Amino acid sequence: MFGNPYYAEKISDALENIQLPESPNNLYEPIHYILSLSGKRIRPQLVFMGASLFGYRNLETVLPASIAIEYFHNFSLMHDDIMDKAPLRRGKQTVHQKWNDNVAILSGDALLVKSYEELSKCPIVSVPDLLKTFNRVALEVCEGQQFDMDFEQRNDVTQDEYINMIRLKTSVLLGGALEMGAIIAGANKQDRIKLYEFGVNLGIAFQLQDDILDTFGNPETFGKQVGGDIIVNKKTILYILLRRALGAEDLEEFNSILALDESAGKEKVELMKKMYNKYKIFEQANTLKEEYSSRSLISLNSIEVKDENKQDLIVLSNTLLNRNK
Amino acid sequence: MFGNPYYAEKISDALENIQLPESPNNLYEPIHYILSLSGKRIRPQLVFMGASLFGYRNLETVLPASIAIEYFHNFSLMHDDIMDKAPLRRGKQTVHQKWNDNVAILSGDALLVKSYEELSKCPIVSVPDLLKTFNRVALEVCEGQQFDMDFEQRNDVTQDEYINMIRLKTSVLLGGALEMGAIIAGANKQDRIKLYEFGVNLGIAFQLQDDILDTFGNPETFGKQVGGDIIVNKKTILYILLRRALGAEDLEEFNSILALDESAGKEKVELMKKMYNKYKIFEQANTLKEEYSSRSLISLNSIEVKDENKQDLIVLSNTLLNRNK
Repeated sequence: MFGNPYYAEKISDALENIQLPESPNNLYEPIHYILSLSGKRIRPQLVFMGASLFGYRNLETVLPASIAIEYFHNFSLMHDDIMDKAPLRRGKQTVHQKWNDNVAILSGDALLVKSYEELSKCPIVSVPDLLKTFNRVALEVCEGQQFDMDFEQRNDVTQDEYINMIRLKTSVLLGGALEMGAIIAGANKQDRIKLYEFGVNLGIAFQLQDDILDTFGNPETFGKQVGGDIIVNKKTILYILLRRALGAEDLEEFNSILALDESAGKEKVELMKKMYNKYKIFEQANTLKEEYSSRSLISLNSIEVKDENKQDLIVLSNTLLNRNK
Repeated sequence: MFGNPYYAEKISDALENIQLPESPNNLYEPIHYILSLSGKRIRPQLVFMGASLFGYRNLETVLPASIAIEYFHNFSLMHDDIMDKAPLRRGKQTVHQKWNDNVAILSGDALLVKSYEELSKCPIVSVPDLLKTFNRVALEVCEGQQFDMDFEQRNDVTQDEYINMIRLKTSVLLGGALEMGAIIAGANKQDRIKLYEFGVNLGIAFQLQDDILDTFGNPETFGKQVGGDIIVNKKTILYILLRRALGAEDLEEFNSILALDESAGKEKVELMKKMYNKYKIFEQANTLKEEYSSRSLISLNSIEVKDENKQDLIVLSNTLLNRNK
């Protein structure tokens, strides 16, 4: 199990025991299905960790906010998979693939509503603040997904635009999950913001590392094909950094590598990695990742609570950022 | 203007002045667009009317809940139009037609989140109850849309199933809008339920009338082609009542009318109307409509407030149920 096993179990117990109406089956069955494709459940654990940082350890009262975050995450996966025409998610058929687009749209909608239903079960005094944070983050996640789709049509995406996109699409939800825990724990506004910033910067560092590992990961331990992003010309941070650094003399070769067919996959990966090496792109990307990683720790350090309360978050941060798969 | 012009103006002012970020344009422009295709704005007015029934007339504090309801309604239109592959809405291109499915999915999601953002601006003491009512209704609307799609694939839908479907798909939102007004006004639980029931039954009566008018409306005043539902074999209350009443000797003719092509539209409408008349389907449907209309008024009458406070709702109910277009 990933993270804190105590929280992980609480969450998986809750998700295994959710009660949904039997009918209409096409609305509720896909919700059961996507929730059963269990991921690492990092996000709902962050809600618990955010609360416990401030000494709040009543799992029962934190649980609904934690489930709300997991529901929201799965809603966004369901809809993103339609938009990205993704056939698989965690090795299993996506909802729109197993049923159809309409089912995935409407079940996703219902799951988004159900995330707010969980919010309404939170301690009543926290509900207004939780709702504000949740709404802000949810809207930003939509913005991030739109930017991501927009960027696929563009070749001139800058580093700042890219970082902003991953911040919105994936990182604010990590920060928001932590902030919601802090709200339930009654933390003050300053501390909430610091914790949120820790989560957002951790998320950005994690996403950058994701890009780096896809190309420079160890094939023995990476778990999926190294170089997958190169093969499909994905606009990762590596691509963006290289494009900016590229000398005029290499532009033609760069374009010819991009034009290589997927069938020339292995060669394509070799050639592109050679170019990444020439321009020290791995080092640049790694420096950027370290920068966000440092920012996140500085933010966490500035919160004045007992060191032992920070332990879970530091372990999580290390696990996420020093993984090799 | 429809309903109470004072409320109507407040709502249209607010909708015309909403501030959305400029970017990402593909996320926010469709929201502006669908909100500009102004309908009658019945639902947001119901929130004001629900509050004013109990003597609460502070428009400013009611406005966010009213806008939340209108946002939710437009979110559901955006997504339903994708699912129904509808090219037009209020005579203009639908969002998925003007942009594409992905844009309509994601803008719809953002609009749903924005409806919760409005809820979070409501008087803080009301937020938890408003959230509960809104969630319950929102989930039921999703269920109603799923049943509606499921019913298209079935020929044995019963009257009860049909009424339940229209209750979920369209009527609970009317009841919920009124209930939210009552919550803000601080009405007691019993009165909230009575008002909700008024709205739900009014909504069912209205929807039944919609079915009736499509076939039996006055072509001079109806506004759209009379018989449109017959031409596309839509499973309206008339269809369901006829199917149940149909004698064995007429079954073959009924099926042959259903099989007629859209090009034989005028003849198809004539033949089906003749069969409706033979089985007194208009009368049956009208009786059913009157039953729900009575239930709604009985529910309203049982709320003990000054008669003058009920005036807006009675006028609205009469306007909705005695219209001929």
